[in-house]
Amino acid sequence: MAAEIADADLVMLATPVGQMAELMARIAPHLGPQTIITDGGSTKSDVVREAYAQLGSRVGQFVPAHPIAGAELSGASAARSDLFQWKKVVLTPLPENSAVSVDRVRRAWELCGAMVSQMTPAQHDEVFAVVSHLPHLLSFALVHDIAQRDNRDLLLSFAASGFRDFTRIAASSPEMWRDICMGNREALLGELQVYIAELNRLSSALAAGDAEQLEQTFFAARELRAGWTLK
Amino acid sequence: MAAEIADADLVMLATPVGQMAELMARIAPHLGPQTIITDGGSTKSDVVREAYAQLGSRVGQFVPAHPIAGAELSGASAARSDLFQWKKVVLTPLPENSAVSVDRVRRAWELCGAMVSQMTPAQHDEVFAVVSHLPHLLSFALVHDIAQRDNRDLLLSFAASGFRDFTRIAASSPEMWRDICMGNREALLGELQVYIAELNRLSSALAAGDAEQLEQTFFAARELRAGWTLK
Repeated sequence: MAAEIADADLVMLATPVGQMAELMARIAPHLGPQTIITDGGSTKSDVVREAYAQLGSRVGQFVPAHPIAGAELSGASAARSDLFQWKKVVLTPLPENSAVSVDRVRRAWELCGAMVSQMTPAQHDEVFAVVSHLPHLLSFALVHDIAQRDNRDLLLSFAASGFRDFTRIAASSPEMWRDICMGNREALLGELQVYIAELNRLSSALAAGDAEQLEQTFFAARELRAGWTLK
Repeated sequence: MAAEIADADLVMLATPVGQMAELMARIAPHLGPQTIITDGGSTKSDVVREAYAQLGSRVGQFVPAHPIAGAELSGASAARSDLFQWKKVVLTPLPENSAVSVDRVRRAWELCGAMVSQMTPAQHDEVFAVVSHLPHLLSFALVHDIAQRDNRDLLLSFAASGFRDFTRIAASSPEMWRDICMGNREALLGELQVYIAELNRLSSALAAGDAEQLEQTFFAARELRAGWTLK
């Protein structure tokens, strides 16, 4: 592997976040002076932390990235050549990255048809805790709750399209989502607490028979969701 | 209206549950001896309670039903002639219903292509609290939470297909879901408490860095969900 990495212009660490540290440690001694490394991890602060620890003075050669093309399928058999066409990729560059390095990673993704944007690792993890990690946790939690029950087959036999769509992401890889949740623990915990507080508020409204508060909550949600489409 | 109802064999109360009591009270004096009434409400215990109150000695002429063909669209403009083809309809007959009456409602739905099953009103409301009412509440809650934030547009711009599907039902009718939640308050409150307990358990696992517990939860959910398809 050593010679290939020394000669490479761009190395993609296409490995689960949990194995990123080990892989970084293995390739670090073999990096050529021009080699740029990037990754595809769904969390960024933890990967960046490992990059500083494992790559040391060569951390400037690592440009962190998150391609956003989720599917409930995973592994090599789920690969598709057009997977990134029109999809978003977020780069979370480090102060140590040169503009040329960042641009090279950006252009590589644009060649795959992706739309590239930039933010800091912390901003990235905050955003994805809300729009991705929390919904996955919530969907897993509902299906897990049903899985514990003796009448789960009866329950599922009456589930309809709303349930189907709400729980599609609960068929995602347990190992990958364990790593994502652990990798973004802090932001995810914060969002989970906010969400539990929202549920407690709705629970009180229900208990009090406060139909008005329920309707206002549903109305605000419907207004935002009905006006949004995935681009 | 009076003459039409007296002559009718089967009258469908196609009205929001919140207006069912008033409609029952209005038609009660005009029911012919052979007229059967049914409904399409998403909750059953509350409708049945109103039927006893409004129809009195004629409650045997009311066969409660719930056709399950959800969509985030509502109203007359969302009508489709094949809406019930292969869809499920649950009848929740009353002890006062004759076998002939129940069978007539069953056959009417089967003529629309639906698959008809039966349970008690309480069983119905328990089942749908889990597989329908709770997921709707959870989806509304997440989108409402985002709607309150100043950076909601940024957040939505990075939402992907998982978020899209999880929140599709948050574009549902606020008035209809207010009525459903209020109509099935007791069962929904119970399920919401179970779910909040599940989230608190996951929150503790996250805080403790218990990756094993997260993975076990996700694995059990994935196993059940990946093995299920909507028929």
